[in-house]
Amino acid sequence: METGSRPQLSGGALATVEWDAAAGGVRLIDQTRLPAEETFVVCRTAEEVAAAIRDMVVRGAPAIGATAAYGTALAAREGRLAEGAALIRAARPTARDLFRAVDMVQAAPDPLEAAHRIARETVEACRAMGRHGAELLPPEARVVTICNTGALATVDYGTGLGVIRAAHEQGKRPFVYVMETRPRAQGARLTTWELRRLGIPHRLIADSAAGLLLQRGLAGAAISGADRVCANGDVVNKVGTYPLALLCREHGVPFYVAAPSSTLDGGTPDGAAVVIEERAAEEVTTFAPPGTAAWNPAFDVTPARLVTALITEVGVFSDGGWR
Amino acid sequence: METGSRPQLSGGALATVEWDAAAGGVRLIDQTRLPAEETFVVCRTAEEVAAAIRDMVVRGAPAIGATAAYGTALAAREGRLAEGAALIRAARPTARDLFRAVDMVQAAPDPLEAAHRIARETVEACRAMGRHGAELLPPEARVVTICNTGALATVDYGTGLGVIRAAHEQGKRPFVYVMETRPRAQGARLTTWELRRLGIPHRLIADSAAGLLLQRGLAGAAISGADRVCANGDVVNKVGTYPLALLCREHGVPFYVAAPSSTLDGGTPDGAAVVIEERAAEEVTTFAPPGTAAWNPAFDVTPARLVTALITEVGVFSDGGWR
Repeated sequence: METGSRPQLSGGALATVEWDAAAGGVRLIDQTRLPAEETFVVCRTAEEVAAAIRDMVVRGAPAIGATAAYGTALAAREGRLAEGAALIRAARPTARDLFRAVDMVQAAPDPLEAAHRIARETVEACRAMGRHGAELLPPEARVVTICNTGALATVDYGTGLGVIRAAHEQGKRPFVYVMETRPRAQGARLTTWELRRLGIPHRLIADSAAGLLLQRGLAGAAISGADRVCANGDVVNKVGTYPLALLCREHGVPFYVAAPSSTLDGGTPDGAAVVIEERAAEEVTTFAPPGTAAWNPAFDVTPARLVTALITEVGVFSDGGWR
Repeated sequence: METGSRPQLSGGALATVEWDAAAGGVRLIDQTRLPAEETFVVCRTAEEVAAAIRDMVVRGAPAIGATAAYGTALAAREGRLAEGAALIRAARPTARDLFRAVDMVQAAPDPLEAAHRIARETVEACRAMGRHGAELLPPEARVVTICNTGALATVDYGTGLGVIRAAHEQGKRPFVYVMETRPRAQGARLTTWELRRLGIPHRLIADSAAGLLLQRGLAGAAISGADRVCANGDVVNKVGTYPLALLCREHGVPFYVAAPSSTLDGGTPDGAAVVIEERAAEEVTTFAPPGTAAWNPAFDVTPARLVTALITEVGVFSDGGWR
């Protein structure tokens, strides 16, 4: 794994996950160092890709999927496809896209071309989700969002943030309340950083402030991404998504989930069947006395009944069916 | 305001708020520096007391009340009672105890003796709350709690944490899940520090993890303190209390509030009538790019219907009445 300063970017593209032919590997923005530093990492082996996923150099289900695809292609190039694929599968347990991407590249006649296709289709899906989802947002919508669901989470454009971005590009003037998203602060570190680049007005809030926000009628919609959508519609996403969805129901505010169809997992019946990753205590003990014990689940389950609509690249699905 | 190293403590007492006759002022543990440093501050004027409350050197409604009482007594000693009382009233807007304490000391023939009585009665109330509340907890209760409601918040012993402490002293072996309580991390910094001193087993969680905690049945009760209990029973407390209470209702877990009767405010009809303090953006932007805008309310409102029982020094009040 090679690190270095970030090259000049053009046109607002973030190159969250990008194949670097000259370097012979996949190049990632190091998301653990944002927003303080914009640096990148090139992974040239399946081990390096697995480590980058595990350590959250790259995060966000669709971005993890594309990175895993390139990692599997690298394993194929090394002539150790099965072994490399197994390493990548073991990197993180919850995001559906990771397993799907490894499967697709493993089965493909040209692994690198399959990885390119996955990355390309992810971006196309995000743009389509943005178009579909933006129709749900009224002008000057005040939207609360959790974690990071922007370009950093998805190769480019974004899922939940892609919907907000599309509304912004349509001139609808959305305003975003960004939940900090402890313990890793993806909202504070990454979403605010992206929104500033995009010129979309926003305010950061503590995760716990979402209650008063909705109580006082300050947000008219909530939107999140998803790491896995189960067969019954339960949504597995960043820990804190479920309390937000529950608050939305209590206050009659729509709760939208934007996720590409690659996140839909017909093989998992419901949220109770999903392995919830538990990460190191040190992520939570930032402010605590040394040696404090912690419980640090990375995800929770939002029951399908709390989801007003699921926004995919195919269209919008709600209780009333697809439209 | 004079600062110095913390003197030797005996018997587990924290001396959160203590009159220091030799120094001629009120001595406070500096809670902004815990758990890294145990230092104390002596305030000798009403200005210094108001600053200590505003800057959260002392926090927790009952501890603020006792400190405000001593501050008002200091103003009386300086021969500028009305002016000093006004300064202290303006320090923080939400906690009921502050206003009550200033009123009582202003009206008393011997202001210092009135302040001593408020401090003494606060501790007695906490011990009584502990006895009443511990009866509600079954053996080996797994309890989730927010913010700090221990000795640091209350001169000594605690409100919510006092109930847990009483259960512990009765041999009931409680286990505590401590919500971090962003943005100021009173749970991570102060509650874990107190629980360790008391030998009560606990784990820290991100505020957002309370949803999965209850979803997975890991906590059988929740307990919080209160900054103000309105006439209709609405509870104004640390931001994040309301989402926790809502989760408890969703999962059929009792949500208890422990607060001395000094926190009951018959003059405020309901939570909507309470001024919610908004604090500086910098408390929230810890992990965000410089200059990020934030919304930082310090409290929220838990509707009375979500409170299973209110534990006071007089007894336990629930829908069924006092008992």
